[in-house]
Amino acid sequence: MTEHAGKPIRIAVAGASGYAGGEVLRLLLGHPSYADGSLVIGALTAGGNAGSTLGSHHPHLLPLADRVLEDTTVDTLSGHDVVFLGLPHGNSAQYAKDLPESTVIIDCGADFRLTNAEDWERYYKSPHAGSWPYGLPELPGAREKLAGATRIAVPGCFPTVSSLAMAPAVAAGVVEPRVTIVAVTGASGAGRAPKADLLGSEVMGSVRAYGVGGVHRHTPEIIQNLSELAGERVTVSFTPVLAPMPRGILATCTAVTTATEDEVRAIYEKAYADEPFVHVLPQGVLPQTGAVIGSNAVQIAVTVDADAGQIVVIAVIDNLAKGTAGGAVQSMNLALGLPETAGLSTVGVAP
Amino acid sequence: MTEHAGKPIRIAVAGASGYAGGEVLRLLLGHPSYADGSLVIGALTAGGNAGSTLGSHHPHLLPLADRVLEDTTVDTLSGHDVVFLGLPHGNSAQYAKDLPESTVIIDCGADFRLTNAEDWERYYKSPHAGSWPYGLPELPGAREKLAGATRIAVPGCFPTVSSLAMAPAVAAGVVEPRVTIVAVTGASGAGRAPKADLLGSEVMGSVRAYGVGGVHRHTPEIIQNLSELAGERVTVSFTPVLAPMPRGILATCTAVTTATEDEVRAIYEKAYADEPFVHVLPQGVLPQTGAVIGSNAVQIAVTVDADAGQIVVIAVIDNLAKGTAGGAVQSMNLALGLPETAGLSTVGVAP
Amino acid sequence: MTEHAGKPIRIAVAGASGYAGGEVLRLLLGHPSYADGSLVIGALTAGGNAGSTLGSHHPHLLPLADRVLEDTTVDTLSGHDVVFLGLPHGNSAQYAKDLPESTVIIDCGADFRLTNAEDWERYYKSPHAGSWPYGLPELPGAREKLAGATRIAVPGCFPTVSSLAMAPAVAAGVVEPRVTIVAVTGASGAGRAPKADLLGSEVMGSVRAYGVGGVHRHTPEIIQNLSELAGERVTVSFTPVLAPMPRGILATCTAVTTATEDEVRAIYEKAYADEPFVHVLPQGVLPQTGAVIGSNAVQIAVTVDADAGQIVVIAVIDNLAKGTAGGAVQSMNLALGLPETAGLSTVGVAP
Amino acid sequence: MTEHAGKPIRIAVAGASGYAGGEVLRLLLGHPSYADGSLVIGALTAGGNAGSTLGSHHPHLLPLADRVLEDTTVDTLSGHDVVFLGLPHGNSAQYAKDLPESTVIIDCGADFRLTNAEDWERYYKSPHAGSWPYGLPELPGAREKLAGATRIAVPGCFPTVSSLAMAPAVAAGVVEPRVTIVAVTGASGAGRAPKADLLGSEVMGSVRAYGVGGVHRHTPEIIQNLSELAGERVTVSFTPVLAPMPRGILATCTAVTTATEDEVRAIYEKAYADEPFVHVLPQGVLPQTGAVIGSNAVQIAVTVDADAGQIVVIAVIDNLAKGTAGGAVQSMNLALGLPETAGLSTVGVAP
Repeated sequence: MTEHAGKPIRIAVAGASGYAGGEVLRLLLGHPSYADGSLVIGALTAGGNAGSTLGSHHPHLLPLADRVLEDTTVDTLSGHDVVFLGLPHGNSAQYAKDLPESTVIIDCGADFRLTNAEDWERYYKSPHAGSWPYGLPELPGAREKLAGATRIAVPGCFPTVSSLAMAPAVAAGVVEPRVTIVAVTGASGAGRAPKADLLGSEVMGSVRAYGVGGVHRHTPEIIQNLSELAGERVTVSFTPVLAPMPRGILATCTAVTTATEDEVRAIYEKAYADEPFVHVLPQGVLPQTGAVIGSNAVQIAVTVDADAGQIVVIAVIDNLAKGTAGGAVQSMNLALGLPETAGLSTVGVAP
Repeated sequence: MTEHAGKPIRIAVAGASGYAGGEVLRLLLGHPSYADGSLVIGALTAGGNAGSTLGSHHPHLLPLADRVLEDTTVDTLSGHDVVFLGLPHGNSAQYAKDLPESTVIIDCGADFRLTNAEDWERYYKSPHAGSWPYGLPELPGAREKLAGATRIAVPGCFPTVSSLAMAPAVAAGVVEPRVTIVAVTGASGAGRAPKADLLGSEVMGSVRAYGVGGVHRHTPEIIQNLSELAGERVTVSFTPVLAPMPRGILATCTAVTTATEDEVRAIYEKAYADEPFVHVLPQGVLPQTGAVIGSNAVQIAVTVDADAGQIVVIAVIDNLAKGTAGGAVQSMNLALGLPETAGLSTVGVAP
Repeated sequence: MTEHAGKPIRIAVAGASGYAGGEVLRLLLGHPSYADGSLVIGALTAGGNAGSTLGSHHPHLLPLADRVLEDTTVDTLSGHDVVFLGLPHGNSAQYAKDLPESTVIIDCGADFRLTNAEDWERYYKSPHAGSWPYGLPELPGAREKLAGATRIAVPGCFPTVSSLAMAPAVAAGVVEPRVTIVAVTGASGAGRAPKADLLGSEVMGSVRAYGVGGVHRHTPEIIQNLSELAGERVTVSFTPVLAPMPRGILATCTAVTTATEDEVRAIYEKAYADEPFVHVLPQGVLPQTGAVIGSNAVQIAVTVDADAGQIVVIAVIDNLAKGTAGGAVQSMNLALGLPETAGLSTVGVAP
Repeated sequence: MTEHAGKPIRIAVAGASGYAGGEVLRLLLGHPSYADGSLVIGALTAGGNAGSTLGSHHPHLLPLADRVLEDTTVDTLSGHDVVFLGLPHGNSAQYAKDLPESTVIIDCGADFRLTNAEDWERYYKSPHAGSWPYGLPELPGAREKLAGATRIAVPGCFPTVSSLAMAPAVAAGVVEPRVTIVAVTGASGAGRAPKADLLGSEVMGSVRAYGVGGVHRHTPEIIQNLSELAGERVTVSFTPVLAPMPRGILATCTAVTTATEDEVRAIYEKAYADEPFVHVLPQGVLPQTGAVIGSNAVQIAVTVDADAGQIVVIAVIDNLAKGTAGGAVQSMNLALGLPETAGLSTVGVAP
């Protein structure tokens, strides 16, 4: 089933030395289609790291340690059935143009996430490249667009967790369209380019806010997702906080409500009843990012603070897995007609 | 000046083997009155740890390492000019009753923080002991009540940072009286009693929410502080998040506003212009807990998200220092007529 | 092949709420025999945690979250083909006696590791229970004894990494029989019983030595392994160091040598050429525990410091995986005649 | 006493935006001579960071946050009584030459630590600049050379802790002259220049070895110190290990001995009886780096493993404090005739 006319599916990963690329490879190495040979890992490419071995960047990917990284070019990426792009934003459009339309391109970057050109230009200060089917199958209507798609925009990590946290309440209209989100993230979300303020000495033993006041680029993406569900403009106050851990996001999402906790819980349990990766926690149980590390799971706690008149939804994901590479592989499975959960787990690595 | 009729001030610390007690001692060891001999450290007491040395619990307090912990009793605490209480809640009232009225009792616990008996009983499930002058001098009117006081209730760590973060905006009436707070804290805030979910293996590499939906005991204390400033009931949605670090709190506080950032900044800069420990950060600079570790400083960033129509105030403190022991020593200084900043610093230990 | 007369293999885990038990379950959930139904997870038992759900202890094991823990008794463990024991030492002998001889018992505890009764009694202060086939297949002669075994002693985490680090050099006789080992470990190695000195606040931001001077119970096990290979008594100075991370061990092993680095490297490369989990790193590459988290891999760097006349071998494992549960599952595979690597990976979760 | 002819001592710090420079400033801000005005902080200089404020690099140094960094030149450093150099190695000689001989230059870099030109050239691949009085007063004979000195080489962090750990045993001749050291360090020891392998995501949750096999540049410095004490060449196998914490070093030092633990302990207690910063721990107590963070203390545990016939000495310091800036300020105190302990504490910040 996973073969195209009897030939194995060939996969390339651009940006293989980065965190997104490395996580895509980690998941592919555990994919059953890789194990049975119907999926093969082809070109691994990089920018400045071309020429070095994958092992020098990702010593945890032992089976591919000796692979040499090639330059990221249309040439090296050609001849593959699936191409994952883990590139700085603004670089995906050229590959989308020059690779065959039949190639499944899965962009872990931001270029094709926003539908509104003005939003793009305001937040990214560059021309808008367009928009592609959105790789968050759990949103109403999204899964259908991903089946057979050959161009997929993987959501940002914060929009993934925030949208899944608020989607049922917003879609059901039980909250006012004004959402406040504080999302605590691990450091890998900031990528692997060396910066002084991301050094271990700076990150450990400290939390800090960044991108406060609506300036973070994931803000318009969250607004886009929630507004579409609400059928009206939803305002979002979004504050990301950097915590001393490599992976994981915990998003605390609040909005004014008059509904009871029972009503809201019922809405969430119904919305996610058939979702393989989204787990609504029992009453009184609160999520921790440590429980989803390495997995594609989303764990959500739904509470209503009656005194404050607010819903408080707390959701956790692994930003590199469900928030990036897991979402990408899940999308690939849908695009290729593979089982959606193939190679993805709800079992985390803890402690 | 720091002597009572020429005799040095004698200080006792109850609960000396815990984190609050240890931090009080750390600060006293660096206090100029300790250095010049006008303040001496008397009885150090504990519950289950009585009989062991202080060094076996706090190897960082080398000058006191050989001190043996006594039982916490009225007897052992008697004969001191100042008694710091770092006890589980519900235990302070008896010492308040049996120690002389002239003894300065500084309670790091919760017993005397809440003025409203119903709030106390709802959150603590026990009879209300009363309320004492509140050890947060930066709140309007508080400093005056601390001068010469002999009974002082040190605020909770979350109420300290949250109240200072929102006080100017709430007092000025530029926000709606509905505040949402997400506060990320280090693990020492949970105390030193061994619990499986506070083990290093559980805490590291993970963040988790706890006490969601208004159930955390610091919620009514924040409401009390902000409501008094507002002159009306302020509702507070408060969510604490545990992060993998020993110390520090970063509180993200939001509320609806129609004011501009410039207007709000002006209010904060004026409110804290003369405060030695509260620092309003320049525009565009965001705080990190790492910058205040070990210090009594509060660093605050004030922003307005015009799109979302919300003020976003981010404040950081060291939960053990300004959030507990630092606030306690600052209160002691005021009570004794010492310089308010004696033994307290705005210089953190970083990285 | 993995079925016994057509019926699936039933597996019980005693001590399922602990770290070893949880990790065994994590690995079993990813085992291909679990996926194809030929291996089923039966009773999960605990001591004091009996009656609670597995999910309340291991929220990362979502597929088993609702399972209720039973009491650890011969009764609850009966009727299984394989029983993993993750119990405090001294508790395994009774189950070994009362469960059928045909039941494959895999003891993650220490009870049956030491062959010498005096060593046991000196270090564990209790009667010696005996010794079982040793679950470290990479040691010369060990794999053969595990095939078809029904009683298996899983090695300690430090002996696993230390023995694999020094075995080739000791067996080849290129070092003096006096080995110095300093092994830095994550906190999960200390188990999940709550202790004040293992609290997150104590562990984070600090490293500390413990069990210095040969008193750690893993010392005689390392001596046993290396002495057998050397054919003479090897003395071992072993110092464990606790580092602020949940998982992983990095062991630095030194001994006097007159051999060159090329000679020593050749010995190691030959010794481990066919081992699926042991990877000798290329010259100049040093290992990090982060590369093996969640995996069964052992990464080893071999160097000779000619100035000091010493071999320096650095090896890393995941203490819970290869160091405990991974070794246990690898041993189970051998005992049952399954492929040795089934359900085990050389791919770690990083960063 | 701390004034030169009634004028305050003017201090400049070159490399003020780095970790060493920041820590020197932190200590100076707490120095009693700064408090009484007899010591003032003059020029703060930097390389690429010149022109920015100190607060943008060290937000924990609030009192100096608005200071603008100047270029590091002879001109900006002139006119000061004391100049601390926190520069990359190879840069100190020019300032030593061009600043007046009467200026007290305290070099936190490596340039003037090694007395042997061949050692320097082998490890640093550049011409040897010479050697200065060595800023480790606790070594026999060192304190005398620092009194009144105007050129001081601050020891490396690993040599500081390793030399103090082994000095008494080596000087007393109770160990064979072959020492094995494994030293676990926090990340700040690697400095603040951004490198991918020092990113928080890489450092957290992982330990790794580096500079194995005698290639670390601190190796010849340790050999130099111990050999001088032994009166013969001491070989040193030195392995540094990077742990996920910002600060602290724990060094495990072993050597063959025939002495008993009592004999060795007596030697250490006598050697350090009068040292204000070196604390030999009681028998059975092991050190942790967390106890010395921010302090100038050295805590040492002395044990003998009779089975292995080895001494095992474990010592901890704060690499930035006693290991760099604390040692520098201690040396400054001696050079200026101030009390040696002024501005330095044995009280750490914990947890």
